[in-house]
This record gives sequence, C-alpha cells and structure tokens, in this order.
Amino acid sequence: MALIVMKFGGSSVADSERMERVAWIIAEKFTEGNDVVVVLSAQGDTTDILIEKANEINPNPSKREMDVLLSTGEQVSIALMAMTLEKIGLPVVSLTGWQIGLQTTTDYGSARVERIATERIKTELDRRRIVLIAGFQGINRYDDITTLGRGGSDTTAVSVAVTLNADLCQIYTDVEGIFTSDPRKVPTAFKLDEITYDEMLELASLGAQVLHNRSVEIAKRYGVNLEVLSSFERKPGTIVKEVTKVEHSKISGVARDTNIARIALMGLKDEPGIAFKVFRTLANASINVDIILQSIGRDDTKDISFTVALGDMAAAQSVLEENKESLGFTDLSVDDNIAKVSIVGAGMMTAPGVAAQMFEALYGAKINIDMISTSEIKISVLVEKKDAERAVSAIHAQFFGA
Amino acid sequence: MALIVMKFGGSSVADSERMERVAWIIAEKFTEGNDVVVVLSAQGDTTDILIEKANEINPNPSKREMDVLLSTGEQVSIALMAMTLEKIGLPVVSLTGWQIGLQTTTDYGSARVERIATERIKTELDRRRIVLIAGFQGINRYDDITTLGRGGSDTTAVSVAVTLNADLCQIYTDVEGIFTSDPRKVPTAFKLDEITYDEMLELASLGAQVLHNRSVEIAKRYGVNLEVLSSFERKPGTIVKEVTKVEHSKISGVARDTNIARIALMGLKDEPGIAFKVFRTLANASINVDIILQSIGRDDTKDISFTVALGDMAAAQSVLEENKESLGFTDLSVDDNIAKVSIVGAGMMTAPGVAAQMFEALYGAKINIDMISTSEIKISVLVEKKDAERAVSAIHAQFFGA
Repeated sequence: MALIVMKFGGSSVADSERMERVAWIIAEKFTEGNDVVVVLSAQGDTTDILIEKANEINPNPSKREMDVLLSTGEQVSIALMAMTLEKIGLPVVSLTGWQIGLQTTTDYGSARVERIATERIKTELDRRRIVLIAGFQGINRYDDITTLGRGGSDTTAVSVAVTLNADLCQIYTDVEGIFTSDPRKVPTAFKLDEITYDEMLELASLGAQVLHNRSVEIAKRYGVNLEVLSSFERKPGTIVKEVTKVEHSKISGVARDTNIARIALMGLKDEPGIAFKVFRTLANASINVDIILQSIGRDDTKDISFTVALGDMAAAQSVLEENKESLGFTDLSVDDNIAKVSIVGAGMMTAPGVAAQMFEALYGAKINIDMISTSEIKISVLVEKKDAERAVSAIHAQFFGA
Repeated sequence: MALIVMKFGGSSVADSERMERVAWIIAEKFTEGNDVVVVLSAQGDTTDILIEKANEINPNPSKREMDVLLSTGEQVSIALMAMTLEKIGLPVVSLTGWQIGLQTTTDYGSARVERIATERIKTELDRRRIVLIAGFQGINRYDDITTLGRGGSDTTAVSVAVTLNADLCQIYTDVEGIFTSDPRKVPTAFKLDEITYDEMLELASLGAQVLHNRSVEIAKRYGVNLEVLSSFERKPGTIVKEVTKVEHSKISGVARDTNIARIALMGLKDEPGIAFKVFRTLANASINVDIILQSIGRDDTKDISFTVALGDMAAAQSVLEENKESLGFTDLSVDDNIAKVSIVGAGMMTAPGVAAQMFEALYGAKINIDMISTSEIKISVLVEKKDAERAVSAIHAQFFGA
C-alpha cells in the first residue's frame, strides 16, 4: 500500500464526462489499497472566464480580491468531483486551501507555499477517505485567500506530496508525458520514459510548459518521485527524478520558443558597470532577460544584445529609451522576427561534441545562427522565426534519427 | 455616525450594471460617515445553475459537498462587488463565512448560526473599510463549510447586525417593501411604512416571501431594526419592528397561497390519541401540516382534514395509506384545487369583528369558505383555487378601500 498524490489539470475535469473518466482513474488507485490524495485545478477555462468577468467590472482590480474570486474555480472542481466519486460509491471528502491549512507568503496572485498542516488530511486518510484538495490556493498570515499563480495546482500537488512524504506524485495532463520535441510539429518525436529534474526545468523554461517550474524545483529539492501522464490514455508517462538510467541519447529534448524578441543596444561606453546599469534598469521594471550577448562595437564602444519575452518588448524598449542618457547608448534596435531553438540533456555534460552536432544539423539545413547561449545541460540558438520549425526537425533528426 | 448592515439579494447583484448601482448605494452610506457592513447573495440564478450542474453529475449528492459547491456563489459576488467599489475608489475588503468565523450547527444545507467572531470585522471597520461578507454560508465544528438554506443571506445579515449591535439592518431587494397584498394581483395594494415582527412572520409563512422567516425570528428576539427596501428605486422601504405606530388599519396585509393541498381522513375511531398518531406519522415522514380541522363524522367516528404543501401531497397520501390499518380510517381523499387566503395584523388582537369583516367580504363576492383557521394575529380561510384572486381583492377592498 502506498500514499499517492494525483493531480488533474483543468482540461482533465472540464466537463462531467471527463470528471467521470478521472473518477475511475482515482477509483482504481484507491481500490488497489492505496491512500489517495487528489489535487484539482479549475474546470476548463473557468479561470479565464472569471478573469474576464473581473476585468469587465474593473480593469485594475486588487490582487487580493482577484484571489478571492479565482479560488472559487478549484472549489467548484473538488465539490463536483466529490459528487462524481460519491455516485460510484466511494468515500470522499473535499478540502479547500484553508481547510488543509496551506499557508503561503502574503503575495496575492503569486504566493509561495510556506507549510501545510497535515492533521486534517491525515485524519481523513485514516478514515479511508479519498481526499480531494483544491489546487492553486492557500491562505496567508492575515487569513486572506491567496493563489499560487498560473500552474499553481502542480505546486500544490508537489507540496502536499512533500508534506505527506508520499510515495509518488502523479501529474495527469492532456499529453502522454514529456516528449523529445513537440509531437505536433516533429512527427518523429517520442515520449521519454524518464527525465531528470534539471532537464525538466530547462525544458519548461523553453516553452515546453507541461509542468509548472516551481513544482519541479520543489520536487527536486525534496526528492519527490514525479510522474507526468495522460488522463485520457491509460499508458505509463514520464518519470521525473534525480538521475535517470543510462541515456539512450546525449540529449533528452529539442524545444523552440517563438514568443521572444531581441533588443540590441549599440554604442555603449566601454566602462565598468554598464551591463549592470542596463539590466538593473530592466529588472526594476520587472522585465526578465534571457540570452545576453556582449560584443565589441566600433570606436571602443560596446554592443549588448539580449532577448526578452515578446510581451515585454514594448515595455523594455520604452524604459531603455527613457534612460538613454544615463545608460549612454547611441542606438537601440528591436527584432521580434526571431525564435529560440534549444537542446536539453543532462548527458551533454559528459558527452563532448554535442554543440558541434547541433550546429552541424543547422548548417545542413542552411539555417543561420544569430546568437548562441549555453548552460551545463542546455544549448540555445537564436534563428529567424521562419526557420524555427525546420531547425527543430533537423536537430531532432540529428540526435534521434529521422 | 451609525453602524449599518446592508444586505443585497441575488437579483440586486445579477450583473455588472446592477452591481455598480448597488456600489453607489453602499458608497452613499459610507461617505456619510457610517460604518458599513454589506452581506451579499450569489448573483442572479447562480445557485440554481450550480444545483443543476451537481444534479447532472449525481442526482443525490451529499449535502456536505453541495455546501462546498454552493458557497462559491456568494464568494464570487463579494469579490466582484469589492472590485466594483475599488473602481469607485473606496476602501473595501471581502470576507467569506469562515473568515468572519460564522459558526453554525453541523446540519449541511440547513445549518443554523451559532455565533460570529467579531474580531476580523471590527478590525476592518476600524481601518475604515467597507466590509463585504458572503451570505448564506458558515463553518461547523468540523471546519466544514455549511450553508443556511434558501434565503440564508437574510439570516447572515441579521446575525451580523445582532453580533455587531448594529443600528440598522437594511434588506435590499427587488420590491419596494412590504405591501398590503401582492401589487401585481391587487392594483390597490400599497406599501406599508411599518410592520411588526409578528405580522412579518405570518406574512412570510403565507407565501409573501420577502424576508426569510428565520431572519425575522432572530431580529425579533434581539430587537434588530430591520428595513426592507428596493435596490432599484431610492425610496424608503418598510421598517420591521416590535411595535408599530397607531394602525391605519386593523390589518396589515392580505396574502394567498395556492401551493397547498387538503387531505381528509374519514371514519377515524373516536378515541384518545388518534390525532397524535396521524400527525406523528406525518412528522416522521418530515411532512409539515398547516391548517387542521377535526369534526364529528357519522356513527361515532371522527373526520380529520388538514393541509400540506402541494409538493408533500403524494408523500403524505402514501405514508397514510401505508398505515391505514394502525391509524384506523375508512377513507382518504385529497384535494389540490384549493387555496389559502389570509389576513394578518397585530391590530386584530384588540379590534373585534375583524373576522366578521373578512367573511362579509367573501360573502359579498359569493365565495364559499371551506375551512377556517385563526391565530392571534392571523385569520386564514380555504377557498377554491379559482376564487383565490377574487377573494384577495374583495378582502383588500373591504379593509383598505377599493
């Protein structure tokens, strides 16, 4: 008998038919004799509908009240799922964030989990009940409702798994697991049986948003056995863990992100602290910078190029222009006609020549590389947006075969 | 400066436009310098939609989970109203049932208020915030969510008013106040400026369901100044209190209830305990009985007639037939072609001849009286359903003029 935490996302509980399918997955685990804790997201696009409703009333509502509003979505899910399980004849109890004492920081809209009181959950498990928990929500020290931000239900699930010392944390979603690349774009992409936490973190940050990053970070820190699998097909998914078995390939995935823009500052003075000033200015405006490239310009000046999320491009441009004088650049150019293509793999640390293999694939496909950035387990290149899909296919074929 | 509790029903907050109208009513009271606590119901038919959603999944869900589900409706209302008030620029905080520590009995779906912790509300009022409270909901001693049953938000408002020792509790609704009769049916019906708690209780039980009965009972017990008024028109409403000013009329209202049925048991043995057995049988089946009439039948037997809610008719009939032998009646007849017409007025206690006046009106309209029942401040008669509307008009004209 094991203690299993299962998490089902919004698409898995979107309507009563899907709820019933999920109920049978839960029922199976429970009747096998396991203790079962289930974390649920809001149904389908409930959260988006609530946000829209709020914005109609007030385009700039307080985050506190937004959290009061949004947290109802998950509460509806757990109640309806409880009723679905009751119909099957299973013992069940639904609990909200405050009922499990999920304490968070005070940051409404993007709170972090601080601790979870285990008493209530354990009491209910001892009574042999399936425990349904509303994901995404908690309370802060003022006894106000908080939410954990997008994808927060993953974080709830992993945090509950850590607190209860669960044997396994299963994240059920609408895909079968983690793929070597987007299977809708790369027909030869295949599902990985295993992946390391670090690879998962890099992949998530590259736009392969299957698992919420913070949940993977917590899972890594506490060594939670994570499994990503489909709620629609009964197949094994992908296990996320510290070390995977012998690598079949040097890399575990190829991803692309077209949701980026590049900004270049030219003619910066070549003096200490210039890069600091530029990126502090952006940080103060809450703009995250990804790839950074610094090069020597003409006449003893420097050029700095960097990428930001497409949605931040306009804000970044305007805050930099505002500070043109103090930063001391001569020209600023922006380019949103680019894409980032990356390979990720813990294996590349010990396998030389992975970068060369990647560049070879791009050369073979006659694709120009604009910028390059590397980490221990990731290599990213910027290419023209139109070349992104071909680049992914070429690289995937290079490492995994066509 | 006063402390005012305002309650707005579902139709008053049904959409963003109505919410804004309500927001300005609240704003007015707040900017006059009052401490303002607002209790809200779920928007429009939200509760019905949620019930329907639940019943699609499970026709017989547990009441506990139903309460988890339904309580989200009021939570959405307070969040959206808070955002509406924020837009106007007013300081506001929304609080759920558990956040104000509204403790109830354990009866899911029909819990009773036991106590309310005042700390949080008082702290927020001291910070000069408008406090929005989700009506209809509380928590029981297991820290489970409970609801107070239909119309429970009225009870929340009055309970909060009692706890805070409020100066006034205003119930905003879609009518202007309490009328002498249904103004849609009796064109000469007029709004009462004042009514006693007892009259209000009798009227509510007669189908003039403007205020939830339990809320009036609590208001009476603790002497809460209640006002029923419209959220759509800026007019004074009806004040509900212990003693009203000199009566303009001996009665305060004429009501009808067509949602009833009459059951007659014939040939009962004339021995002690027979009535007890009959009504205990019905009570065990959770069937409420209203008017009871006992008369002498033929051959030393007794007949007993009584009315029940139309919805209970079939259940009452079947439970009585099942116990025909032990109860010892010879025949049972049911009649759903009836209506109850009643007059209510604290003044009738000291004004002789009120009953005679009522019967005179019915005689003048050539309407047969089937059964009569009286209390200290109420006289009810049963008439044929087709005569009900005419009966109300004739009685209204008799007491208030045509």
